[in-house]
Amino acid sequence: MSWLETSIMARKGVAGGKALSSHAITEATQGTYHYVYGPFAKPVLTVEPGAVVSAETHDAFEGKIRHETDSPSKILNFPYLNPQNGPIYVNGAQKGDALAVYIENIEPRGPQPRGTTVVMPEFGGLVSTDHTAMLQAPLPEVVKKLHITKEEGTRWSDKITLPYEPFIGTIGTSPEIEAISSLQPDYYGGNMDLPDVGTGAVVYLPVNTEGALLYLGDCHAAQGDGELCGVAIEHPTVTTVRIDLIKGWTLKWPRLETADVIMSIGSARPLEDAARIAYRDLIRWMAADYGFTEMDAYMLLTQAGRMRLGNMVDPKYTMGASIRKTFLV
Amino acid sequence: MSWLETSIMARKGVAGGKALSSHAITEATQGTYHYVYGPFAKPVLTVEPGAVVSAETHDAFEGKIRHETDSPSKILNFPYLNPQNGPIYVNGAQKGDALAVYIENIEPRGPQPRGTTVVMPEFGGLVSTDHTAMLQAPLPEVVKKLHITKEEGTRWSDKITLPYEPFIGTIGTSPEIEAISSLQPDYYGGNMDLPDVGTGAVVYLPVNTEGALLYLGDCHAAQGDGELCGVAIEHPTVTTVRIDLIKGWTLKWPRLETADVIMSIGSARPLEDAARIAYRDLIRWMAADYGFTEMDAYMLLTQAGRMRLGNMVDPKYTMGASIRKTFLV
Amino acid sequence: MSWLETSIMARKGVAGGKALSSHAITEATQGTYHYVYGPFAKPVLTVEPGAVVSAETHDAFEGKIRHETDSPSKILNFPYLNPQNGPIYVNGAQKGDALAVYIENIEPRGPQPRGTTVVMPEFGGLVSTDHTAMLQAPLPEVVKKLHITKEEGTRWSDKITLPYEPFIGTIGTSPEIEAISSLQPDYYGGNMDLPDVGTGAVVYLPVNTEGALLYLGDCHAAQGDGELCGVAIEHPTVTTVRIDLIKGWTLKWPRLETADVIMSIGSARPLEDAARIAYRDLIRWMAADYGFTEMDAYMLLTQAGRMRLGNMVDPKYTMGASIRKTFLV
Amino acid sequence: MSWLETSIMARKGVAGGKALSSHAITEATQGTYHYVYGPFAKPVLTVEPGAVVSAETHDAFEGKIRHETDSPSKILNFPYLNPQNGPIYVNGAQKGDALAVYIENIEPRGPQPRGTTVVMPEFGGLVSTDHTAMLQAPLPEVVKKLHITKEEGTRWSDKITLPYEPFIGTIGTSPEIEAISSLQPDYYGGNMDLPDVGTGAVVYLPVNTEGALLYLGDCHAAQGDGELCGVAIEHPTVTTVRIDLIKGWTLKWPRLETADVIMSIGSARPLEDAARIAYRDLIRWMAADYGFTEMDAYMLLTQAGRMRLGNMVDPKYTMGASIRKTFLV
Repeated sequence: MSWLETSIMARKGVAGGKALSSHAITEATQGTYHYVYGPFAKPVLTVEPGAVVSAETHDAFEGKIRHETDSPSKILNFPYLNPQNGPIYVNGAQKGDALAVYIENIEPRGPQPRGTTVVMPEFGGLVSTDHTAMLQAPLPEVVKKLHITKEEGTRWSDKITLPYEPFIGTIGTSPEIEAISSLQPDYYGGNMDLPDVGTGAVVYLPVNTEGALLYLGDCHAAQGDGELCGVAIEHPTVTTVRIDLIKGWTLKWPRLETADVIMSIGSARPLEDAARIAYRDLIRWMAADYGFTEMDAYMLLTQAGRMRLGNMVDPKYTMGASIRKTFLV
Repeated sequence: MSWLETSIMARKGVAGGKALSSHAITEATQGTYHYVYGPFAKPVLTVEPGAVVSAETHDAFEGKIRHETDSPSKILNFPYLNPQNGPIYVNGAQKGDALAVYIENIEPRGPQPRGTTVVMPEFGGLVSTDHTAMLQAPLPEVVKKLHITKEEGTRWSDKITLPYEPFIGTIGTSPEIEAISSLQPDYYGGNMDLPDVGTGAVVYLPVNTEGALLYLGDCHAAQGDGELCGVAIEHPTVTTVRIDLIKGWTLKWPRLETADVIMSIGSARPLEDAARIAYRDLIRWMAADYGFTEMDAYMLLTQAGRMRLGNMVDPKYTMGASIRKTFLV
Repeated sequence: MSWLETSIMARKGVAGGKALSSHAITEATQGTYHYVYGPFAKPVLTVEPGAVVSAETHDAFEGKIRHETDSPSKILNFPYLNPQNGPIYVNGAQKGDALAVYIENIEPRGPQPRGTTVVMPEFGGLVSTDHTAMLQAPLPEVVKKLHITKEEGTRWSDKITLPYEPFIGTIGTSPEIEAISSLQPDYYGGNMDLPDVGTGAVVYLPVNTEGALLYLGDCHAAQGDGELCGVAIEHPTVTTVRIDLIKGWTLKWPRLETADVIMSIGSARPLEDAARIAYRDLIRWMAADYGFTEMDAYMLLTQAGRMRLGNMVDPKYTMGASIRKTFLV
Repeated sequence: MSWLETSIMARKGVAGGKALSSHAITEATQGTYHYVYGPFAKPVLTVEPGAVVSAETHDAFEGKIRHETDSPSKILNFPYLNPQNGPIYVNGAQKGDALAVYIENIEPRGPQPRGTTVVMPEFGGLVSTDHTAMLQAPLPEVVKKLHITKEEGTRWSDKITLPYEPFIGTIGTSPEIEAISSLQPDYYGGNMDLPDVGTGAVVYLPVNTEGALLYLGDCHAAQGDGELCGVAIEHPTVTTVRIDLIKGWTLKWPRLETADVIMSIGSARPLEDAARIAYRDLIRWMAADYGFTEMDAYMLLTQAGRMRLGNMVDPKYTMGASIRKTFLV
């Protein structure tokens, strides 16, 4: 028996966490990709809970950076970055519910070298940006094109190969009245760039508007904690997710479940606020669903909590606070 | 001669900074007020450069808080807060231009007590919020209703009267593809809550999309630096602005001019990033338009720059960096 | 009658705020200047409350930067920077008391050009530092030597003269058991770089150890808000202060009084924490001494508080929150 | 062969990483414990490189909290907290060298219940503090006394046992001229509260003054990432370290090595600055000693770096950036 059968998704989902129907979003059926998370785009697909959806995702640059001699600052046209599949309308989803998204599979696609990472001016964790504004001259632009396969991973150099550890960099639901850049992570998900959002995990997302309007894209073949230079191993994929709906589970921030842990995810600046959001949400979750008082949960997390740094480069920074299920007794 | 005749607005504006036509936006003609700054709303008014527009603004609570016994947390329905007039479409405005908005007049309106300030749970500069998440119990809610006239000011208590020093708390243009809550300040203006945006000042705003789509609202009868508890003296007004268009003046952040100073306005978290944005933009302005090298401007602002704290409570904090025009020689 | 006669210093000081004795600390009697605020140095002077002390201060570089061709990074020897006069032992001062320091006069001294400002690598508000660590190349070093007189001010350039608005950049008492670099501002004062600490103001400092052990130095001929590049108009002075002692007034952070305002001063990173410290301390002061409830003070400061940015470049950033005395009714 | 024989300590240490002599610091020989890291205390022990030192450490409360009914805020006397063993003078150590400290063993000592954790007012990651100042009432105080053995771990509750995963919460060298509270982490080490500083790791510390003056204490039986409520499982121990000296290896920040990784440790506020320090130092280390360019290291860490949150509660927050040795090729 898979752990999934005992997951929150299985226990509370309208579809019991089961795969009940199958759908595909190809580049052709997607047509226009989206650069904002919002309620103004027409759904590309409408599904029932239990739907399995395979989506052809673009890389974060929409495939425009093809050669190591390309200049990202000339080719890229802000704010038309980080193209997203969707939105997927989930029947029955209403404000105050939660969407459960089980990540079944991520497969690289497209001609080699499929992978791209770059260093761009005014973007990254160790350089001046439009918000952490400085007067120094920017670093030079660098483009690295990379050969990726599921089996072998990413050929970083003659000596270094990075294992294929794919995850969804950007996934979330629509805000209720806002339409926010797909470069930003926030309470509805978005560009969290958190490696835990990988194959085998279930992400729980707040539903803010009718139909939930799920978007996803920006898959990474590998990424270190913090996505330091701002750009992971970006690559186009076929990403397959199973979508269920949990009625009346009202989330303030995204949550995540694996076989071993539950996690709350916060996004904010400064970074300690992302950590505070994540830990407080986890405390409240432990209090609401696992029999802890807030004080007990606070003290136990002090001794046994884990914190993962997602990104320290996006408009908000992201951290995931988790605790092992074995402590939830 | 008014200083305005030598302002940037007068020197560079399509209408030469002059008042050429007159328009009104009443509650009735506005109809639905807006809670996001975005390109998806239909313009309520289309004008030429040189237009003078008088708008009937609501207070930030849309007049819903009427009694000191009201409970804000029960009455207010997030995210339907901070209602905005507009958008106003400015003919000829294109991405890369700047809008010049001269604030001619702000008059209080509506039945007394017209003014409202409140302390609400999870909102404010000295309390736990949804982002600076803490475990302590919130402060009690407080509502204060206030008598305001232009002549007398705000009757705060038997002993204290606050002079009427009105300004526009929220004003800005539409982002290009995003629609962002009117609670947020950012590169396009928005909820800056900066007292300098008051009668007699000219605000310069980046144009991000065709027609600029100017929104405004949220006028304050008085406010201290930082808008500490999160809510200034909110009141409904008739606010009159003169709108001009500066072609080809591409701004990254809002700027402001008075008889005495030029100012750049930054909004970000943490607060030092707001200050960095503001000072760097002012340096670049001094370098582009006033004959300084960046290094000279950096060193002069070290000795003569002034920094005003707008808000330290909104989703981004706001600061305005300025220098006296007498130093721009 | 001077406002000083109604000051807290006059009303609560052991010496009633009066000048009762006169002392001088020359370069010769000071001998070794100090680079830490701590209890390990032998007092250079012991005084009674009511003492007036004139001290020959060095500039922050101890006069080592003499020519515009000098290289600060080669000449300066970290951590031997920001030399301080003192410590002055105040008889009767004990942990839990407050020192009141009235700044009587600041006079420039030394051969012309007396003033110095520089841009140094890894130091300043708009560059990468040892804490806000970045990978970009530093800005070039720049040294500017400046002619200063009390009457004329600072000759910045052929066109710009900065008025002489001197203040004490670094002043404070010793911590109880720590010895902390004179480059840092903190709860005991130190390198606050706040222009309000100028002629005519009274600074109130917590006493943390027997004798208080007052240090001071680092006078500035002028400075903008934030001390942006990290270095104000540094100059050697004769600085005259009157010292009184307030028994049993236990301060958490430095406070300040002028004819018009009372101010609380906070130092922290990120900058919003400096603002929070300052505003909370001011609220508690208003509650303890002026008949406000904390909630009333919180709401009044929202409408009438003022916030001054001292520095955004030192190991902690400094802000001063104030309110006009006319509102303290 | 142990990995230690190929460690930097073994390759560069004066003693070749070997254990050459044996020493003990008991409670009796320590006498007075220390509350600051500084050069003003007399060494309790002088050793040659290669010394193995066993120290009887106190818990962070010096054993004063004995019962769950105790009130920490009444018993504890700030700043006399976090007592430290040492300083240990290392012969031959000079400014610009590095100390290598291999953590051989940590054993709990003292009568049961040996372990202590508490929630105290104005201290912790999810509450108002003296720096993140808020107006809300503090959480209630809580004391938890805990049974700890090396074999069994910490009995947290009837249902939960935390494995014994001990580490040194506070360890470092003396600053050159400052004496800084043992509650603070900084460039010389100190109160980093980073679980990686555990048995089997080698810590490398900058030498700032003659003899290095090593302090240590504050051992934890377990701790989650961030030390959320501010207090880990504090306990008294016998802690055994092997000390070597690396001449001419000038470090800006603490570093760490295990069999599998190298790590750089940064401490700062806001938290992103701790992360920036750690990652930049790791990049420079990779560039200096492992043949990377800074740009290559920056890009590789983006894909393969790991970041551990030590504490988010101390005067500075601590993060450790690491990379697997298998990538250092």
